Amino acid sequence: MTAIKNRPTWIWYPGDYEIWLHQKASVLRQFRGYICPPSWRLDAAYTSVKFRRTYELAEPTELTVSAQGDYVLLLDDDMTPLRRANQPISSVILPAGRHTLSVNVYSDREIPALYASGAGCDSGEGWEVTALNGKWVPVASWTFQDISLPPAAFPFAYEEREPAALEAVEGGTLADFGRETFGHVEFRGVTGQGRIYLYYGESREEAMAGELAETFDTLSVNGDLAGGTSRDWRTPVTRAFRYIQLKADEGVSWESVVHHYEYLPMKRRGEFRSSDARLNDIWELSEHTLQMNMREFLYDGMKRDRWVWSGDANLGFLLNNYSFFEQDVAKRTLIGLRGKNPVEIHINTIMDYTFYWFLSCRDYYLYTGDLEFVRARYADMLSLMEFCLGRRNEEGMMEGYPEDWIFIDWAPMERRGALAAEQLMLCRSLETVAEFAQALGDGERAPRYGDAAAELRERIFATFWDEESGAFLHGKLNGELVRDVLKYPSLFALRFGYLNDDRREAVKRNVILNDGIQKIVTPFMRFFELEAMCELGETERVLREIRDYWGGMMDLGATAFWEEYDPELPPELQYDMYHDKYRKSLCHAWGAAPIYLLGKYVLGVRPTEPGYARYRVEPHTAGLDRIEGSVPTPNGDIAVYRDASRIRVTTCGAGVGTLVFSCDGTPRTKDGPLVPVSEGRYELELAQPDTNYEVLLA
Amino acid sequence: MTAIKNRPTWIWYPGDYEIWLHQKASVLRQFRGYICPPSWRLDAAYTSVKFRRTYELAEPTELTVSAQGDYVLLLDDDMTPLRRANQPISSVILPAGRHTLSVNVYSDREIPALYASGAGCDSGEGWEVTALNGKWVPVASWTFQDISLPPAAFPFAYEEREPAALEAVEGGTLADFGRETFGHVEFRGVTGQGRIYLYYGESREEAMAGELAETFDTLSVNGDLAGGTSRDWRTPVTRAFRYIQLKADEGVSWESVVHHYEYLPMKRRGEFRSSDARLNDIWELSEHTLQMNMREFLYDGMKRDRWVWSGDANLGFLLNNYSFFEQDVAKRTLIGLRGKNPVEIHINTIMDYTFYWFLSCRDYYLYTGDLEFVRARYADMLSLMEFCLGRRNEEGMMEGYPEDWIFIDWAPMERRGALAAEQLMLCRSLETVAEFAQALGDGERAPRYGDAAAELRERIFATFWDEESGAFLHGKLNGELVRDVLKYPSLFALRFGYLNDDRREAVKRNVILNDGIQKIVTPFMRFFELEAMCELGETERVLREIRDYWGGMMDLGATAFWEEYDPELPPELQYDMYHDKYRKSLCHAWGAAPIYLLGKYVLGVRPTEPGYARYRVEPHTAGLDRIEGSVPTPNGDIAVYRDASRIRVTTCGAGVGTLVFSCDGTPRTKDGPLVPVSEGRYELELAQPDTNYEVLLA
Repeated sequence: MTAIKNRPTWIWYPGDYEIWLHQKASVLRQFRGYICPPSWRLDAAYTSVKFRRTYELAEPTELTVSAQGDYVLLLDDDMTPLRRANQPISSVILPAGRHTLSVNVYSDREIPALYASGAGCDSGEGWEVTALNGKWVPVASWTFQDISLPPAAFPFAYEEREPAALEAVEGGTLADFGRETFGHVEFRGVTGQGRIYLYYGESREEAMAGELAETFDTLSVNGDLAGGTSRDWRTPVTRAFRYIQLKADEGVSWESVVHHYEYLPMKRRGEFRSSDARLNDIWELSEHTLQMNMREFLYDGMKRDRWVWSGDANLGFLLNNYSFFEQDVAKRTLIGLRGKNPVEIHINTIMDYTFYWFLSCRDYYLYTGDLEFVRARYADMLSLMEFCLGRRNEEGMMEGYPEDWIFIDWAPMERRGALAAEQLMLCRSLETVAEFAQALGDGERAPRYGDAAAELRERIFATFWDEESGAFLHGKLNGELVRDVLKYPSLFALRFGYLNDDRREAVKRNVILNDGIQKIVTPFMRFFELEAMCELGETERVLREIRDYWGGMMDLGATAFWEEYDPELPPELQYDMYHDKYRKSLCHAWGAAPIYLLGKYVLGVRPTEPGYARYRVEPHTAGLDRIEGSVPTPNGDIAVYRDASRIRVTTCGAGVGTLVFSCDGTPRTKDGPLVPVSEGRYELELAQPDTNYEVLLA
Repeated sequence: MTAIKNRPTWIWYPGDYEIWLHQKASVLRQFRGYICPPSWRLDAAYTSVKFRRTYELAEPTELTVSAQGDYVLLLDDDMTPLRRANQPISSVILPAGRHTLSVNVYSDREIPALYASGAGCDSGEGWEVTALNGKWVPVASWTFQDISLPPAAFPFAYEEREPAALEAVEGGTLADFGRETFGHVEFRGVTGQGRIYLYYGESREEAMAGELAETFDTLSVNGDLAGGTSRDWRTPVTRAFRYIQLKADEGVSWESVVHHYEYLPMKRRGEFRSSDARLNDIWELSEHTLQMNMREFLYDGMKRDRWVWSGDANLGFLLNNYSFFEQDVAKRTLIGLRGKNPVEIHINTIMDYTFYWFLSCRDYYLYTGDLEFVRARYADMLSLMEFCLGRRNEEGMMEGYPEDWIFIDWAPMERRGALAAEQLMLCRSLETVAEFAQALGDGERAPRYGDAAAELRERIFATFWDEESGAFLHGKLNGELVRDVLKYPSLFALRFGYLNDDRREAVKRNVILNDGIQKIVTPFMRFFELEAMCELGETERVLREIRDYWGGMMDLGATAFWEEYDPELPPELQYDMYHDKYRKSLCHAWGAAPIYLLGKYVLGVRPTEPGYARYRVEPHTAGLDRIEGSVPTPNGDIAVYRDASRIRVTTCGAGVGTLVFSCDGTPRTKDGPLVPVSEGRYELELAQPDTNYEVLLA
């Protein structure tokens, strides 16, 4: 997490905050009144840790201290505790001289954490911690800098919201909060004693379905409590909803109902506007959808699954990079997903989701340039990779074990054996670890993983590339090729830059734009398809898809984007999924895909070196009269504008960009030399930070 | 743990009860008012597990169910929960047909546990559980068979005890409970409001030392509480003590003080009596000492450290095998010590203590024949052994890593490099795993570990055995032999049966009975020395040592045996240790060593095949007129009597024994053929279970 220097801060064992929080957050989902824990192992923080730091003092000095958990302060090798007051915030007198102060903290509820202030021993940098496991590591911290606010409570923000409409329905009331939201519900001025029943719905239909809704609560209230100064009663749990059907026991009533919207405060940084109002609305709703799912972690959907899925997060991170650029959420998510050792099963139990984790780490580094995070998680990357490599078959490829889930997409396909798509992802994961090894100066592993990746890549093409069909075959099972041609390997090979020009064209023609190939089912995988189409220059076509698919949801009244949408379905079936009514998540992170597609392929901004040290800006109007917006980077935003007559770019605070564009006329600029790179295509170096560049196109 | 069949029982993930309990118990120690957690990693139970079993019912049937934690019942692949009442004990109706019932349970406080009764689905055998980590394993259970008593509370027994004496001391009272004890303290008929101060002492001196005692508590009481029916106040924590100095705030007083002795109910099975009353008293006090330290786990000492140490436990297990034969404690201790994966450091951070763990497993199997326990822990043995093997140097020997503690004994010695004693223990550990592999039918690992052990054993002798001195050299550091001759390698080599007759004699003469060799410091290691002397036929000498050393503590008023005793020290220094007053534990498990020495070498009973399938009885009067007693086995006790004129043995309920004895005269028996095996030495087969055998010696 981001350590803020020069002020004392709550500190803990690295990774434990995220792993603890992930466990607690993962079990908040309920389904029809019962818990619904994830189907993968949940890890726990260490309960007993020891902090230490060495200090030197000219005279005895007071140290103010607090801990989350039971604790004892010790000096050097003396086991006699330093005396302190038995209060939440205590002080001790540190003796003069050079000493090592160490603090044992134990907590089985929250993470053991420490706060110290004064005597040159401010908790933060300079402190180390051990889980009594044979190694000392630098402590971790985040934004907890108030000694009286230890890291047990997540720093959410809250806003009170009143229902947009209240409607009398049979036996109760339907509250409509106007749009998808999340949080607690409070009843004010309650009279009577008994229960209030809340049936939540992301749709009106779901709320009205009563106990067929995904979530419902019962709140026991007593408006007659003697001595109470308040007659307000609040649900103890948070739910995702737009509508709530409210019923109550005989005699129970209330003056008003409000909702406490709970959210992670984030700055809106990415923006997109264009001459197409529908696209602009889609962008806005996408941002709302993503924001709802970015909290402690990047969730799949806030009603359902309310879990952290590595593949979903891989996509969500990309959207975040073009909107909020809130990287603490990304880091927490990557740590929480990885969990603790030993690795016994794939992340989320899904083989591809293990690979998405590596790809997410790669994207994280590319967009942020944060090598410190890579360094801190490097050991975890290695052990996860070794787990994978230990599961290769005799051809060096990974097949699913009986307990593994091979997901890729919901579409029907052979899932046994070695699948081309999975090997491509493994190959990219190997390259990622090799590149991290290189960046971290691990001279032994960089070539080892690099060579393994190169060998695997060659074997993938030798095994699965079929010259005749100009496409990848699906897989290999029991020594026999599975000759189906599906889109997945092509999407990944293209994405990873594994295709030469001939094969790019072949794949585009034979697979990606070929209507005869089996359709992709999940919006998750469709994201990669739309991305591929953009990469292949079909951005205008993608914008049509966005208008139809995302616009279609808006036409049906969506106030956030859904997990899935099939325009062919009649309205009464739109909220069904997984063979059940109202199962569908109507606020799903991957539903916000337009953010990335518009930011990366219309505004056209992408880093080409880690942390935007170098980047590219290649704005495409893609059939629109005008596009404009901004893309966040670690060093401020990059603003882009283009219409028929001009391109304007305002660079961010660091790094060197390259503006790339095509135009029919003769472009002009006063801001640097225009370099023609091919017929009608030009480049302009954006060398100056925080600078406006303008190119006149006609 | 022992699963009692055919009755429903609380079930959980195997090992998690012990690991959870070990964590909670390990942090109960306090030192002068503060926590004092162990210096090794404490592991936690899984928080989220899933139970399942398949059933077949002719018609819908009621199932009664409870869980420790939040839970949901599911059927087959349907995610819609089975409806149940929201009560601690609920019932559900299971539909007819063949189905798989599964139950997710989540708890972050106690272990997730389940109880089910009825519908052919009684919790216990037939149920499996997963930690969502890719594998299903059979559930574990213990003695929790009451649906209303989940496994959160350990089933201790309690006895109320009054002080043997109350003495007015300056500003307060000194309560003497007459002997070492453990538990809570209760003040009855309290009047006034304020604090009571309790200073505990295993010795009178410690209690009188106030805040220099290891443990003290402050109890806030209010004798004036309106409406309270009781004016009794009890300390919330348990302590070890014989004496308590009591003080109170002005105005606070009480009618009486009692103590609730907390203990694990165990049957006294091993017995020893002889013509020597002092030896008999030593046996009794040894048994009390051991019993005090056998609770959730086998502890080192109940005042201090109140922790579970693998070496101490190795010794304690042997004592238990000749007294209580309470193997559930042994199993919990072995599981708790091993903890969870990954193995990052040696058990208790001590390299030798990792090896003692293997040796304890070996002893456990030899004395109990419980192959099921070995099977259940086999994976944990393998991963611990692989951790060790991965740390060998280029000569295949283990040296301490910087974070490792090389203990062996407190005596001064070179601890760096490859020590002969450590390699001998590694070798025995390898043999142990090889033999378990053999017993479990693991045909791949049995020879692999067996060969590794044989190679190492050869290399140990080639490297460290010094023909000239007729002894082992101490170690090898940076390629150079460390030529010190210390007792440790000889003790281990003898213990493990690695010495041929010549070397046995050499070691006996040159090392074990050689006063010129540096003395052993800890009673822990002296145990092995006394054992070796018995093995070498010096039992009479050992009895003298027992009378002196253990008798010496009794002469100083000991009511349990100590961590250490030096007859040379003046009385006022007898309770000091580790450079501090009153640090010494006056009730230390290893202080009970006479139990083993008397049971194994005087009564002379030992198993020669796992679980006493075959065993040996070789009673030695060792200078006494008469010895008698009994030794517990998995199949009842073996009773032994010997005086100058006769030997009597009553066999246990199964297995075949061999009576071995020497005598000068011509022995006679009606109970079978006496086989002379050497000059004056005879054997009699004890083939019949539950049978009295008698041999007349004169």
